[in-house]
Amino acid sequence: MNEHVKSLMQLLQIKYPIIQAPMAGGITTANLVASVSNHGGLGNVGAGYMTSEQLEKKIRLIKEKTDNNFGVNLFVPNDFSVDHEKIQQTMMHLQPFYDELNIEPSNVALPSVEESNKRYEEQIDVIIKERVPICSFTFGLPAQSVINRLKEEEIIVIGTATTVEEAIAVEQLGLDVVVVQGMEAGGHRGTFLKTVSESKIGLMSLIPQVADLVNIPIIAAGGIMDARGIRAAFHLGAQAAQMGTAFLTTKESGAPIEHKKAIVDAKETDVVLTKSFSGKHAQGIKNKFVEHLEPFAANLPDYPVQNTLTQAIRRETRAQNNEQFMSLWSGQSPRLAAQHTVEQLMNKLIQSLN
Amino acid sequence: MNEHVKSLMQLLQIKYPIIQAPMAGGITTANLVASVSNHGGLGNVGAGYMTSEQLEKKIRLIKEKTDNNFGVNLFVPNDFSVDHEKIQQTMMHLQPFYDELNIEPSNVALPSVEESNKRYEEQIDVIIKERVPICSFTFGLPAQSVINRLKEEEIIVIGTATTVEEAIAVEQLGLDVVVVQGMEAGGHRGTFLKTVSESKIGLMSLIPQVADLVNIPIIAAGGIMDARGIRAAFHLGAQAAQMGTAFLTTKESGAPIEHKKAIVDAKETDVVLTKSFSGKHAQGIKNKFVEHLEPFAANLPDYPVQNTLTQAIRRETRAQNNEQFMSLWSGQSPRLAAQHTVEQLMNKLIQSLN
Repeated sequence: MNEHVKSLMQLLQIKYPIIQAPMAGGITTANLVASVSNHGGLGNVGAGYMTSEQLEKKIRLIKEKTDNNFGVNLFVPNDFSVDHEKIQQTMMHLQPFYDELNIEPSNVALPSVEESNKRYEEQIDVIIKERVPICSFTFGLPAQSVINRLKEEEIIVIGTATTVEEAIAVEQLGLDVVVVQGMEAGGHRGTFLKTVSESKIGLMSLIPQVADLVNIPIIAAGGIMDARGIRAAFHLGAQAAQMGTAFLTTKESGAPIEHKKAIVDAKETDVVLTKSFSGKHAQGIKNKFVEHLEPFAANLPDYPVQNTLTQAIRRETRAQNNEQFMSLWSGQSPRLAAQHTVEQLMNKLIQSLN
Repeated sequence: MNEHVKSLMQLLQIKYPIIQAPMAGGITTANLVASVSNHGGLGNVGAGYMTSEQLEKKIRLIKEKTDNNFGVNLFVPNDFSVDHEKIQQTMMHLQPFYDELNIEPSNVALPSVEESNKRYEEQIDVIIKERVPICSFTFGLPAQSVINRLKEEEIIVIGTATTVEEAIAVEQLGLDVVVVQGMEAGGHRGTFLKTVSESKIGLMSLIPQVADLVNIPIIAAGGIMDARGIRAAFHLGAQAAQMGTAFLTTKESGAPIEHKKAIVDAKETDVVLTKSFSGKHAQGIKNKFVEHLEPFAANLPDYPVQNTLTQAIRRETRAQNNEQFMSLWSGQSPRLAAQHTVEQLMNKLIQSLN
C-alpha cells in the first residue's frame, strides 16, 4: 500500500483501507457498523431516512459495541414538489401491489421541503452532539455553514461524486475526502450536478480522470467485492475502497434474508437502474415491482414523495417475505457476493490484500 | 506481469500486453495498425464495413509495413428487416441534415441479409488466403464451420463479450481468447445475448465475474487509456488491455481531425450511448446529430439499414469538416486522451508499465 493509502488510513484512523458503504433503510445495523470498525475497516451508518431520535439511539448503540472510528452518512435535502396529479396517477399504478399484499392505501403523510430540511438540521445536531468522528454526504453538497460546524468539532467531512466536476466541487468546498461512485454501484446514485444518465461512468474511467484533477483522497465505490477490486482501485488512483453489496449480504446486515438471497442468486445482467421505489435513480435487482413501475418512471413524483408512497408496500412485502416488491439494491457484481459474517469477509479481504 | 499475461503475449506473439482496438470506418489505417505492431503491441483492422477487395488491399499494405502479428476484426452478420415505413420516417428526420449539408438524399442501395452474409464469407476467405495471424469477431459468435476453417490455418480466433454469459459462450464455442467489453468502451456495443441496456456492465464488475467462470485469456476493453488502467485490468483478472480511444487520437489514425479534437476537448459526461448513426448502440460524444435523432431511437430501422441511411451525411460532414453530424465514437475517459504519435503513446505506456 502506497503512502497516499496510508495517509488516508491515518486520517480516518482505520487499519485497512476498507469502508463499509452507508446503506440506508435499516441495513446498517449497529452490529454491522461496529463489527466492521472492530475488524479494522470503517463502518458507516446510512442515516438518510432516520429521525434524529433514531440516529442518536443508533450512534449510542454503536459506541457500546466499538471504540473505533465509524461514520454517519446523510442525504443533503433537495428541493422537490408535491404534485398531486402525479401522486394520484402513481397510486393507481401501485394499487395492484396494495391488492396483492392485501393492505389498504392509508392516508400517507406526504413529506414537505421544510420538514425534510428540519430533519437534516436535527441529524447534524446529533452528529455534533455525539461527536461522531466522520460524517459523509450524498445527493449534493452540504452548506458551508454545516461544514464549518462539523470542522470546528474536528469531524472529518466526506462528499460523494459521480463525475469529475462533482469531485472538483467537493474539493473546492473544503471537504476532506471524496467518495467516487462508479456506475457499478448499488443503491442510489449520488449525482447532483448533471442528469443521472449523463453521470453513469464506470470506475475504470472515472477514478483516473478524478485523480488527475483532485488532490483530496479518493474512496472508490462501485462493484468492488474482493481484493481484486481493491487493488485495481489503488492502481487507478484511489486510496480506499467502499463496499456496499459485499457487506449487505453479511450475517450482521439488517437487509431481509430475501434481499441477501436475491443478490447471491443474481447475475450481473439482473441489475438495473430504477426510479420506481424512491423517485431517485437507484441500482438493484429487477423484480415484479420494478418491471411494473419502470414504464411510468418519467411521470413518478419527485424524491422523497415517491419514497413515501411506496413505504407501506416495502414494509409489508418484507413482513410477508416476498422479494418481488422489495427494493433489492445491488451493485453490478452480484456473482461475487457470499453470505459471510463480517469477520469472515474482513479476514478474507485482509489476507488477500497482504 | 504474471505468468498468464506472459502466456497470452506468447500466444499473440506480442512484446507488450497492449492491443489497439479494431475500430471500423477508416480509423485503422495501415499506418496505425503496422505502427502499433512494430512497437510491440497488437494492431487490429476494423474491417466490419469493408468489402473483401478493400480488406485484401489493407492487409497487403500492412504486411509491407510490418513483419509482426496483427489482427482483423469482423462483424458477425445479424438478421435484420428492411422496414420501409421506418425508413421513410427516418429519412424525414434526416432531411434537416441533408439540407444543412446541402446534399440531396440520393437513392441509397439498401443492404440485404444475403449480401451482408456474402460479404462476411468473402472477408473470411481473404483472411484465410492472406493468412492473417489473428481474427476477432464482434456482434455475435461465428459459426462452428468458420471457426474450424480459421483454426485449420492456425489463425487465432477471438470473440467479444459484454456479459459473463457471452464470455462463457465464446469459450464454449472453442475460441482462443475473449475480449471483455465494459460499458466504458467507445464505439459499438458487442452485445449479442441480452439487450444492450441489460449489458452495460463496468469493467470493475465485469472482469472478475468473467475471470471466475472462464478459463481462456481475457482482454479487457473499455476506458483504458494509460498504465493505470492496464494495471487495474491485470489485478481484476485480465491478461491484456485493448485500447480504442487512446489510439484513435494518434497521428496515424484515420479519424478526421475534428473527431480527434472533439475527444481531446470532451468531458466524461459528454459521452453517450446512441443508436442514431447505425441502428445499433454505440458510445460517443454527443453532438447535434445525436441530440436530434436520439428521441426517435426506438423507431429507427435495424442495423445496418440505418447505417446506410446516414452514410451520405457522415461522408459529407467529414468533407465539410463539421463535427456536429459525425459519429464521434469515444470511450468514457476522453479527459485522458492526447494527440500523440503511436510511438509516443507506446513509449509512454511501456515506460509506466515497467
